Amino acid sequence: MSGATSGILDGLFSDPETAALFSDEESIRAMVAVEAALARAQARVGLIPADAAERITAAAASFEPDLEDLRAGTEITGVPTVALVDQLRAHVGGEAAAYVHWGATSQDIIDTGLVLRLARLSNHMAGRLGEIIGKLADTARRHADTVMAARTRSQQALPTTFGLKAANWLAPLARHRKRLDQIRPRLLVVQLGAAVGSLAPMGGRGLEIMEAMAEDLGLGPATPWHTQRDGLVEFANWLAMVTVSLGKIGQDIMLMSYSEVGEAKDGGGGGGSSTMPQKANPIAAETLVALARLNAGLIGNIHQAALQEHERGGPGWQLEWLTLPRMAVACGAALRHAARLAGDLAVDPERMRANLDSSNGLIMAEAACFALAEHMPRPEAQALVKQACGEAARAGRNLFEVLKHRCDAPVDWQAVSDPANYLGEADALIRRILNEAGV
Amino acid sequence: MSGATSGILDGLFSDPETAALFSDEESIRAMVAVEAALARAQARVGLIPADAAERITAAAASFEPDLEDLRAGTEITGVPTVALVDQLRAHVGGEAAAYVHWGATSQDIIDTGLVLRLARLSNHMAGRLGEIIGKLADTARRHADTVMAARTRSQQALPTTFGLKAANWLAPLARHRKRLDQIRPRLLVVQLGAAVGSLAPMGGRGLEIMEAMAEDLGLGPATPWHTQRDGLVEFANWLAMVTVSLGKIGQDIMLMSYSEVGEAKDGGGGGGSSTMPQKANPIAAETLVALARLNAGLIGNIHQAALQEHERGGPGWQLEWLTLPRMAVACGAALRHAARLAGDLAVDPERMRANLDSSNGLIMAEAACFALAEHMPRPEAQALVKQACGEAARAGRNLFEVLKHRCDAPVDWQAVSDPANYLGEADALIRRILNEAGV
Amino acid sequence: MSGATSGILDGLFSDPETAALFSDEESIRAMVAVEAALARAQARVGLIPADAAERITAAAASFEPDLEDLRAGTEITGVPTVALVDQLRAHVGGEAAAYVHWGATSQDIIDTGLVLRLARLSNHMAGRLGEIIGKLADTARRHADTVMAARTRSQQALPTTFGLKAANWLAPLARHRKRLDQIRPRLLVVQLGAAVGSLAPMGGRGLEIMEAMAEDLGLGPATPWHTQRDGLVEFANWLAMVTVSLGKIGQDIMLMSYSEVGEAKDGGGGGGSSTMPQKANPIAAETLVALARLNAGLIGNIHQAALQEHERGGPGWQLEWLTLPRMAVACGAALRHAARLAGDLAVDPERMRANLDSSNGLIMAEAACFALAEHMPRPEAQALVKQACGEAARAGRNLFEVLKHRCDAPVDWQAVSDPANYLGEADALIRRILNEAGV
Amino acid sequence: MSGATSGILDGLFSDPETAALFSDEESIRAMVAVEAALARAQARVGLIPADAAERITAAAASFEPDLEDLRAGTEITGVPTVALVDQLRAHVGGEAAAYVHWGATSQDIIDTGLVLRLARLSNHMAGRLGEIIGKLADTARRHADTVMAARTRSQQALPTTFGLKAANWLAPLARHRKRLDQIRPRLLVVQLGAAVGSLAPMGGRGLEIMEAMAEDLGLGPATPWHTQRDGLVEFANWLAMVTVSLGKIGQDIMLMSYSEVGEAKDGGGGGGSSTMPQKANPIAAETLVALARLNAGLIGNIHQAALQEHERGGPGWQLEWLTLPRMAVACGAALRHAARLAGDLAVDPERMRANLDSSNGLIMAEAACFALAEHMPRPEAQALVKQACGEAARAGRNLFEVLKHRCDAPVDWQAVSDPANYLGEADALIRRILNEAGV
Repeated sequence: MSGATSGILDGLFSDPETAALFSDEESIRAMVAVEAALARAQARVGLIPADAAERITAAAASFEPDLEDLRAGTEITGVPTVALVDQLRAHVGGEAAAYVHWGATSQDIIDTGLVLRLARLSNHMAGRLGEIIGKLADTARRHADTVMAARTRSQQALPTTFGLKAANWLAPLARHRKRLDQIRPRLLVVQLGAAVGSLAPMGGRGLEIMEAMAEDLGLGPATPWHTQRDGLVEFANWLAMVTVSLGKIGQDIMLMSYSEVGEAKDGGGGGGSSTMPQKANPIAAETLVALARLNAGLIGNIHQAALQEHERGGPGWQLEWLTLPRMAVACGAALRHAARLAGDLAVDPERMRANLDSSNGLIMAEAACFALAEHMPRPEAQALVKQACGEAARAGRNLFEVLKHRCDAPVDWQAVSDPANYLGEADALIRRILNEAGV
Repeated sequence: MSGATSGILDGLFSDPETAALFSDEESIRAMVAVEAALARAQARVGLIPADAAERITAAAASFEPDLEDLRAGTEITGVPTVALVDQLRAHVGGEAAAYVHWGATSQDIIDTGLVLRLARLSNHMAGRLGEIIGKLADTARRHADTVMAARTRSQQALPTTFGLKAANWLAPLARHRKRLDQIRPRLLVVQLGAAVGSLAPMGGRGLEIMEAMAEDLGLGPATPWHTQRDGLVEFANWLAMVTVSLGKIGQDIMLMSYSEVGEAKDGGGGGGSSTMPQKANPIAAETLVALARLNAGLIGNIHQAALQEHERGGPGWQLEWLTLPRMAVACGAALRHAARLAGDLAVDPERMRANLDSSNGLIMAEAACFALAEHMPRPEAQALVKQACGEAARAGRNLFEVLKHRCDAPVDWQAVSDPANYLGEADALIRRILNEAGV
Repeated sequence: MSGATSGILDGLFSDPETAALFSDEESIRAMVAVEAALARAQARVGLIPADAAERITAAAASFEPDLEDLRAGTEITGVPTVALVDQLRAHVGGEAAAYVHWGATSQDIIDTGLVLRLARLSNHMAGRLGEIIGKLADTARRHADTVMAARTRSQQALPTTFGLKAANWLAPLARHRKRLDQIRPRLLVVQLGAAVGSLAPMGGRGLEIMEAMAEDLGLGPATPWHTQRDGLVEFANWLAMVTVSLGKIGQDIMLMSYSEVGEAKDGGGGGGSSTMPQKANPIAAETLVALARLNAGLIGNIHQAALQEHERGGPGWQLEWLTLPRMAVACGAALRHAARLAGDLAVDPERMRANLDSSNGLIMAEAACFALAEHMPRPEAQALVKQACGEAARAGRNLFEVLKHRCDAPVDWQAVSDPANYLGEADALIRRILNEAGV
Repeated sequence: MSGATSGILDGLFSDPETAALFSDEESIRAMVAVEAALARAQARVGLIPADAAERITAAAASFEPDLEDLRAGTEITGVPTVALVDQLRAHVGGEAAAYVHWGATSQDIIDTGLVLRLARLSNHMAGRLGEIIGKLADTARRHADTVMAARTRSQQALPTTFGLKAANWLAPLARHRKRLDQIRPRLLVVQLGAAVGSLAPMGGRGLEIMEAMAEDLGLGPATPWHTQRDGLVEFANWLAMVTVSLGKIGQDIMLMSYSEVGEAKDGGGGGGSSTMPQKANPIAAETLVALARLNAGLIGNIHQAALQEHERGGPGWQLEWLTLPRMAVACGAALRHAARLAGDLAVDPERMRANLDSSNGLIMAEAACFALAEHMPRPEAQALVKQACGEAARAGRNLFEVLKHRCDAPVDWQAVSDPANYLGEADALIRRILNEAGV
């Protein structure tokens, strides 16, 4: 809750679909749906009259909350449910009113309501992930032969292809999709424990009611998890992992768009400056990095929040309220930006090639070593190439010119110096990654 | 920004005054004020025409932003200022329009606008701190003789007074007030550097303009700090320290309100349950703990955000936007709750006394040691008392009964066993703390 | 690395088995094992001579590192592997020396070496988890009829059983065991990509070599994950989740051992004070809380660390080195303490009963409501009981005495006031939890 | 504690001087010194015999701890002091032994011992800061005319000088020095409160003893701060701020050393690869970034740790032990690397110039605007230049060639296009920053 903000920064940091799920409106709608499902489940086992459940179900459909009364009530009782149940009972009216929230505790309603929205959220996010995976798979295939400099520890290292780079961006996203499948059965479960998790006021039918309610809501059954928040923690960690994987894409694009590198650009436009006409800042890429670091920082609070006291806690639960929606919205925003950027990314193969060439052969130093190692022990080859690198750098000469002078090993230097001949198994790796991702 | 949310949880987690300072409206108003001050400063040194500055100043006063246009523009350019300057120029009209934002960069406007609001925030918070300090000082004085169990590592340890406890709650708050005084001159400074912090387009009068603008806005002068965020970090850390100090009060109250302890209660009412009629949950105290842990977690992101690239960064700055307002609002909410609770706290001296007595003398074990140590070596005394403690606990007897039996040292056990005689320098400590706090 | 410290605090914060896995010695041993496995895999596909691989394998077995040389080399190159490969080559000697580390990059060796140790770590931790689960299951069964006060939001709420409390401590641990099973196939995979993840210098047999090496080491195959750290992040999150679940147990025990509550004690002794003879501080329980909060804070840095640049990054990788071992050691220490404490925990059923009784019937207020609700509308019943609670609290009378006076509904107040009759489905919940945990 | 590790990564992540202060040896030495000072102070006011204090002082000087016994004792009691006091008493012997630790609590000794080491640490760090500030001031002066591209949001923006860049690196360090001066009086204070902070067993002379002890140890006086940790939090935040400011330097250097940028290099050598002969990775710069992010993450735990219960807490205090030494060591390591790197940094003015030129005039677009704005309204000028930028970029032509063609305003394009003419007040800013830093 409190995660959806309306404001001038929402285009950067929010996602309409995700934010909607954490609006007061949806939050209340979900809680009311849970109250109705609870009544139906209790009627099914005979704990409350069937017509009361019907009446509650009907009233739930037409219920309009008084938000100001909820705000005031929440400040006093610490939970929105006390005032909400009062409002709902007044709306139900008659004898059925007394059967609203029968035996339940506020947390049963709030938690199950949250889970209902997380079910929708996980569908939304799985869809977005699929969209990004699809676009990156296209990119990987399209650029399987686009040779560029691979960079390790901020230095040009060896050649690679942009196709492999895109496939590597995709690989963790595909794993996140599988993780979500494993997490969902633990996450999307009902919460019903009554005041202290013993189902005491449920007439000895609590477990049956819990199962009926779960079935009704399309959730799994569960023993009460009022102060056992591991399901939510696991999901929040998933949100952070996804956001960070997208942030890594953003960071690579940001680095590729440095003026001196110039290999990638957000083709979707944007990024103009208020004073420098020539600029096009990589806003979306930067925002991906910012959102990644945001969620990387917030995840700690989700773990802190999980340390809750006894049968139901206060501060930890509140801290969870304050943090989980923000993480969801940040992940949603990152997915939105990434989905667009994955389609709009404009790469410049010529500039990639030019950057490769700018090393004057140095980026092919390892290849030279291995070529020479066929004619001398590898350490000797490595020492020779290292010296040649130094001379080439000092003299501003091409490494292979220097090497030809320094040794007479029968190496086809022309072939060895061509980056396109030193791509290793880039193609096979792309295929394997796409295959594992099922795209 | 995005820190002020409207919603049913705001009564718990927000503070109207703080949230207002981080609303879109106030944020824009502050930026517009900065643009006007910039124009006046530039006119003062002759960089732009005086009547342009007048026109801009007048237009700024009547400016009404188009929020949706700002939102859309921000998504594209990454900053609200590009669209805002366009809107403001259109509102100024005529030749003066061209002089709006003359030579400035977006960050000059956004940062200075933020600082203007932080100046008001720091006044608001200093006021609240003063209010809490005053109430706690009253409490400390009123309860200087209210004897209760001091607890160390979750165990009753020795007697103390509730007055000293309240004074100890107050002590860090008084230090935070002094810290704020030291921080303000570093925090409340203008940002003016133009595009890259060199003041290039300011006609060689940039430093003069910066100083004139600072004076106009009631801020201090500064060399550009576009990617040197230490002033903001220091203030955010102050926010976290304040919130945690208030959280410690909340935690102590929460622990004192455990049913089995029952020494303190939120006299302001509240905390009813949706199902258990007897309950009064210590909501405000819990919320103080939650807000403390929230800000303790968020402060890390402020430091992460300070790692910004080159002359102006993207992701770090965005992360700061995403985090600082939330910390401010959380601290503001904590100050609001603490100010009320400090006045409404109902303590129960009889229960405190009963809890002291419930140890059956064990809480006076150290006093017994020191009394005996006047008649035998202290290690011997300590061993004797330890054995007596064990026997007393096992047999359910009073420690002093056991001691009288076990040894014949001429100790006035009646006096030694009275908690009120073993309060050390509680009174002097209260006086010293209040004295240092100036209350 | 740097996670194992020897010191006077290790008894509190370390775990010998875990710390050993992160010692320099084990770290080097694992890297040397990886170099040998790489050589064997490369010999298997014919990339290097078979006798070179044999020689390397033999030399690896007898290798003794020069730690000071490694330290000095690491400071210069940023990785221990450059100096390590030099030392290993010198130890191998002859022509085979040149085939050490053939085509690999430092990160291939360091990461795979880490994974080898994580495989052992996950076995160690799964074993400890199993031990704790077993002990808690015994506790849950043994105390299925031990009635105590359930506490929600720091207040006595309803009765529950200590058996159910122990079962709820166990439930997330059982889920963590399942999570580990799901994580392992993603975590325990080889890293082999060569300099930039293209397997360039592997003679076109890189993927085969990777698979052979994985098989040799008992790991799964993988496409290079040099800057895709999601497998490690997921495991680190598991470490944090486990530590927090154990911390929740510690926190509950700590709260149960407050002097005024006195329901639980660390039967393993310990906790004496340097000055107060009567004290027995719940050190192990407190340490569980501290370790939980430690890992809750550290997990954020693991996510921050995962934001790595291009094909291989620097700062993020280093941050991971600085954080993951500490998290593992903290989790290991928590598991060690919890395994002992789960066996040594001394609970006091009489004190539990006394605490229940101390509410003067108030803890049975909900039960009274539901009993009355059979004779009047529930809201009426709730209002009546709420008034009675107030009167009972003010007058210091038992709730049921007040109720008998206030209404003549034909309720068997004797039965209703007995906590043992209001345990809901505590037994069934224990059975279900133990059943799901397979114990 | 546990912050000093010996290992192969210490050259990267540790600092010998800082680590030594957090070794078991120094930690114990400091605590023993505190016990001796306590005895002297108590003798001074007549609470214990003068010859006992002399004897304790003498024995403290020759005391050799039994570390294994301390480790074992700490695991049981949770603090090293119980076993330490036993050892020290045995070493003192005779009647004086009983006067060791008279009336003190473990935390008095541990906290004051920590503060004694922090006093030395703050001197060490202030010295290192001064060294870095001095070197950066030299750099700023030496490169006041070294023109280079300023970069904002990853794009070349305008020209600046490397001198101004270095001065901006220095500016926050100078402020941190001032902050330290303000923090020290709050940080470097004695802790003496006895068991619960009331100074109960000090014979009514506790405050005098505290002041005498403070004076003896060269610390300030203080009311007990057992669970008021704001002084330590403030210092930890300072550690994080310093580390992050140094990390920003590292990040800028890392970005300047990208192959395509090539403007800066660690002249101290290092950074060789295990497989690529041409590489020189910017290890020290990367390490500065890693350490910054480490401390940015750890600071949150210091705030979490400050939330301590009642008169003395357990988990929070432990969490502080687990975190503060690591932050200190990380900051110490960052200061060590930065001090070396500030002297060894090799910048390449020719490459800086070449990078400036590579924009084909685009980096001077703002200058062109302002030059044109003297002959037409600025918005018109801006639109004209923006179009020219687009054409220049598309056609690969120089911006000023395009502009000359597109307009006939009488602008001295030669002068306007020279970056050296658009440095704004870079020189004055350098002078002001160095002046404020007092260098």
